[in-house]
Amino acid sequence: MNAPAADLPLDGRLRVVIENPSPCIDAGRFPAKRTLGEQLLVQADVFADGHDAVASLLLYRHESAADWQCAPMSPLGNDRWQGGFLVQRLGRWLYTIEAWVDELLSWRRQLLARQGAGQPLAVELLRGAQLVEACAARAGHEAAGRLRDWARVLADASLGAEQRVAAAQEQALLQLARGYADPALRRRFEPLLAVQVERERARYSSWYEMFPRSAAAAAGQRGTLADCEAQLPYVARMGFDVLYLPPIHPIGRSERRGPNNRPSSDAADPGSPWAIGSSAGGHKSIDPQLGTLADFQHLLARAGELGIELAMDIAFQCSPDHPYVREHPEWFLKRADGSIQYAENPPKKYPDIYPFDFGCEAWRELWAELASIVEYWIGQGVRIFRVDNPHTKPFALWEWLIARVRARAPEVIFLAEAFTRPKVMYRLAKLGFSQSYTYFAWRNTRAELAGYLSELRTPPLSDFFRPNLWPNTPDILSEYLQFGGRPAFIARLVLAATLGASYGIYGPAFELMEHEARDPGGEEYRDSEKYQLRHWPRERPDSLADFITRINQIRREHPALQSDAGLRFHATDNDALLAYSKGTADADDTLVTIVNLDPHHEQSGWLQLDLAALGLDSARLFQAHDLLSGARFLWQGPRNYVALDPAVAPAHVLRIRRHVRTERDFDYFL
Amino acid sequence: MNAPAADLPLDGRLRVVIENPSPCIDAGRFPAKRTLGEQLLVQADVFADGHDAVASLLLYRHESAADWQCAPMSPLGNDRWQGGFLVQRLGRWLYTIEAWVDELLSWRRQLLARQGAGQPLAVELLRGAQLVEACAARAGHEAAGRLRDWARVLADASLGAEQRVAAAQEQALLQLARGYADPALRRRFEPLLAVQVERERARYSSWYEMFPRSAAAAAGQRGTLADCEAQLPYVARMGFDVLYLPPIHPIGRSERRGPNNRPSSDAADPGSPWAIGSSAGGHKSIDPQLGTLADFQHLLARAGELGIELAMDIAFQCSPDHPYVREHPEWFLKRADGSIQYAENPPKKYPDIYPFDFGCEAWRELWAELASIVEYWIGQGVRIFRVDNPHTKPFALWEWLIARVRARAPEVIFLAEAFTRPKVMYRLAKLGFSQSYTYFAWRNTRAELAGYLSELRTPPLSDFFRPNLWPNTPDILSEYLQFGGRPAFIARLVLAATLGASYGIYGPAFELMEHEARDPGGEEYRDSEKYQLRHWPRERPDSLADFITRINQIRREHPALQSDAGLRFHATDNDALLAYSKGTADADDTLVTIVNLDPHHEQSGWLQLDLAALGLDSARLFQAHDLLSGARFLWQGPRNYVALDPAVAPAHVLRIRRHVRTERDFDYFL
Repeated sequence: MNAPAADLPLDGRLRVVIENPSPCIDAGRFPAKRTLGEQLLVQADVFADGHDAVASLLLYRHESAADWQCAPMSPLGNDRWQGGFLVQRLGRWLYTIEAWVDELLSWRRQLLARQGAGQPLAVELLRGAQLVEACAARAGHEAAGRLRDWARVLADASLGAEQRVAAAQEQALLQLARGYADPALRRRFEPLLAVQVERERARYSSWYEMFPRSAAAAAGQRGTLADCEAQLPYVARMGFDVLYLPPIHPIGRSERRGPNNRPSSDAADPGSPWAIGSSAGGHKSIDPQLGTLADFQHLLARAGELGIELAMDIAFQCSPDHPYVREHPEWFLKRADGSIQYAENPPKKYPDIYPFDFGCEAWRELWAELASIVEYWIGQGVRIFRVDNPHTKPFALWEWLIARVRARAPEVIFLAEAFTRPKVMYRLAKLGFSQSYTYFAWRNTRAELAGYLSELRTPPLSDFFRPNLWPNTPDILSEYLQFGGRPAFIARLVLAATLGASYGIYGPAFELMEHEARDPGGEEYRDSEKYQLRHWPRERPDSLADFITRINQIRREHPALQSDAGLRFHATDNDALLAYSKGTADADDTLVTIVNLDPHHEQSGWLQLDLAALGLDSARLFQAHDLLSGARFLWQGPRNYVALDPAVAPAHVLRIRRHVRTERDFDYFL
Repeated sequence: MNAPAADLPLDGRLRVVIENPSPCIDAGRFPAKRTLGEQLLVQADVFADGHDAVASLLLYRHESAADWQCAPMSPLGNDRWQGGFLVQRLGRWLYTIEAWVDELLSWRRQLLARQGAGQPLAVELLRGAQLVEACAARAGHEAAGRLRDWARVLADASLGAEQRVAAAQEQALLQLARGYADPALRRRFEPLLAVQVERERARYSSWYEMFPRSAAAAAGQRGTLADCEAQLPYVARMGFDVLYLPPIHPIGRSERRGPNNRPSSDAADPGSPWAIGSSAGGHKSIDPQLGTLADFQHLLARAGELGIELAMDIAFQCSPDHPYVREHPEWFLKRADGSIQYAENPPKKYPDIYPFDFGCEAWRELWAELASIVEYWIGQGVRIFRVDNPHTKPFALWEWLIARVRARAPEVIFLAEAFTRPKVMYRLAKLGFSQSYTYFAWRNTRAELAGYLSELRTPPLSDFFRPNLWPNTPDILSEYLQFGGRPAFIARLVLAATLGASYGIYGPAFELMEHEARDPGGEEYRDSEKYQLRHWPRERPDSLADFITRINQIRREHPALQSDAGLRFHATDNDALLAYSKGTADADDTLVTIVNLDPHHEQSGWLQLDLAALGLDSARLFQAHDLLSGARFLWQGPRNYVALDPAVAPAHVLRIRRHVRTERDFDYFL
């Protein structure tokens, strides 16, 4: 016989295998994301050689906790197992899977098979007693006593076989014994996996973007933070819970852009808020024309009273007048002619902006300073940051900065404003951004919308990328909005607010249906607030404010809309009609939304609902209650007719009520 | 300003990211598989922040080589990059991806953009000269000189801008300079990935299974290895290149099964070859009734002369009479009554088989002994092993044993006979088995066949699981073969041999269309060779031997059939017609096979070929030449009519010839 080889695996008796866990992002390199109070469902392939039963446990703990907690995993079929746990604390949780060959369960299964076949059982009962004895030896005093008593009955030849087999089936004792399976024969999946737990607003939020300098009550006046505060009730009434302000820092004077991005400006032109820094200060200062830090604190406090959080813009770039340029020239790229390199994407030039040179020797000091900017505003009470163009700064910076912030303030939310290639956007989400802007503004047809939103809902992407859907931004006035009129604005609002648990609008341009572009074929607003003051007639009778109020109210009343997990598309026989549903996991709340994507014509057709996905019985009536118009429809089966006239209402948002048995029962739901 | 934090990443200036490489199995835990002379195409997502160009290299080396070789990677679009290398040596190769921000390429791209926009270029030319100087400082003497000369021209203000921009576009100098990019700013993907390179027969093989004891020339005689040798020309004529023999070891006497698996036997019954071991020896011995080791050597040598390799059966189990039972009782499970546990899957019992107890304390010695069995037969010249029921032995055993064998003999091929749950079968393939039995025998409808084969062709599965398709085995006489008559045998042969680069039949039962089952509804052969001697009238006029010869000849002549990489299914408007193509990567060899899956009736219908996939121009004629009947069809476009009468021929195997311009040109192909 050969001697054992030196290259043997550490314990060749570990028979169980754990494969393909989920969620698992880039082999465990990045955490999945959940919000407080959600359940994390974990799956894995678990199996062993041969025919024995296996058992599997989900282990989990908050990063700061020393001990693992356990949840059982159950087989889903085809060797896939699932378990879950509630994440009830902010921060990073760790989890993994433990599995082993379950000798006790295998033994009992075989015992019953033998009994069924009328085979002798004495030897098998003795074997069971041995297995239980082995568990007792690993158990504490009390459990060991109960297990030894059980083993004695199993082994007792003076009892009838029937009585002993009945004892073998004692469920509670079996469970007790299984808790003491040999720990040396358990396998634990490696590496540890992680889930980053954020607060609910990371998952469900309604954003409103507004330029404070255009918030003045009277036309021609320069708006201040105080004027902005005066608009808070207007924003709160519409139902928004995040108010995002473009940068409020001092604006550079050198190379300042004029109206409509003109290369020159005069003294009255306010300049772009993203050209940050002047002699009045930089990223930790407030533009004196907007107000003081005290004004900002007051605005923050008043917003909080109204249920609104302020989101601050983080744009890591400088105007030529930023104090950093003088104090830290080493953070900027010097050109061969001695000048500092301004931003450009040749042939386009942005001479009012100096980017940081992240390749500089002093990158460590630069990173530290940038982190201190975020930390400064956290110190002032800000808890949400909208990050401008994160894709033009190093990935490693964001991963480090976000982790550093979260270690002290896990409630801080980051939104990535990266409109770039998909893999770059997804990478930023992996690095820690809570939410991400998307291509939504440019997805208009049914195939585009259903395809894109379905992609975003596909794991592993859906485990780390949280879309925030914006029909417009100060940079994006889509062709659809330019030419679709009021129905286009309504349709895009309904889409954003019901497809996305998080969405936002740039107002008052949105509710006032601002739709004139600066250039034909372009997406820039004419007379954009980015370069000049505007005065908005918010009280205009055709404003969409009331409609927005209704939509946000529906979002608040319906948990189905507060998560993207339950999104599902349904077929229609008319390409202009997009139909989708959202439902909570318990199916208590289910909404079906149908949008006419054609802003110019009535469109009608047959809906083909996936009844099984909606938890509906094809044999029973159900009620579809339009939360926008108040209309109620009594439907049965998957095929139902819809007609949507954009001049009246381009969408149905239907609440589905189950268990309508007869037309008489229907009355109870009115 | 804040001081740099202690938690900064090692080098925050590494801007490039490498994600999602392929092939990559279980995050790099297992190697992909290729065969000698194939190209390994490696892909990955490679990108950086911002707008700069990135560059990417594929690094690879044979495990035994010290230095990396490099191959360029090119962008495929959407940030996906691809490179490849030929694997020209058996064993394990390692590979990874290196990437960096390509400053030189970015600079030149921007320079040309500026030039196009008529912007000043002087400063940019100076910057280019600086970048080239930096490369020169990292280069060897000769290259440094050329680069410095180039930098001088770029920086030379006395030259015209046009001349300097022309110099900037010198492709050879740019490539030279790019080779000296700062190594400190390169990222290398981790962990290292691996590909296991086997010989061609691991990918392309034609197996014939035969019981030597039924090889006697005369009825009633017990066949020997010498009789088996006499059948080699018959096997070679049919075109098989692997002859697989069920175990040839001594067979136990205790509990020996009689004909048709009867629990009792008499002296003349030979017993199951899988009940290994008697007083005559165990796994390293040859059944004296079959012959001697010298006979085996002679058989092996003669087979080699005919281009046939012997595949030996490895069944790690013992009869009660095996010497191991006496010499190593510690390797078997002792029951509570002192008896040794025989194999069972309650309520089924196999008292003639003792399984090893892989959970025993002496598992290390057991593994060493089992490895020595394989090594013993390798010592005798065997290079292919068909492993019986690997899924009832520990996974870790196979990974260790196969790696150990391959370290010394990388040409050894292992076929896994695991008919069990899919994830278990796939795990065995990951662990190192070269080929695997499949569910093919039970996939009969078009949807079943196309669905299953497509699953097997989907990465990552296709990177490590090589199917070996068997229409029958001594354990599997499918219902389709029991009741489909001669057309069923022909159809299943064509399917196995043209869907699978590796396939096998159990003969002569197959070519003689043996189709009677032992039990109604069962899949065991009546009077199975597993339990009794058989005599086969190989010369019977209705034998399929000639048809099999033709099929194997087509396989030899067509590289398209020697790999599974090019398999693609095509639509037909008749569910009974399965159509698929196989083509080489260079599209030089393309075959379209159409099989009538209904063995009882003629079926006809319209084929809808995917012309783009076949590399065919829809505007031009092409010839479809049936390699079975010799018929030639002149086709154009995707829709073509086919009719297959199973009584005549249930399949077309069409060679596609391109570039047929006119009916007259067609003649040239005759």
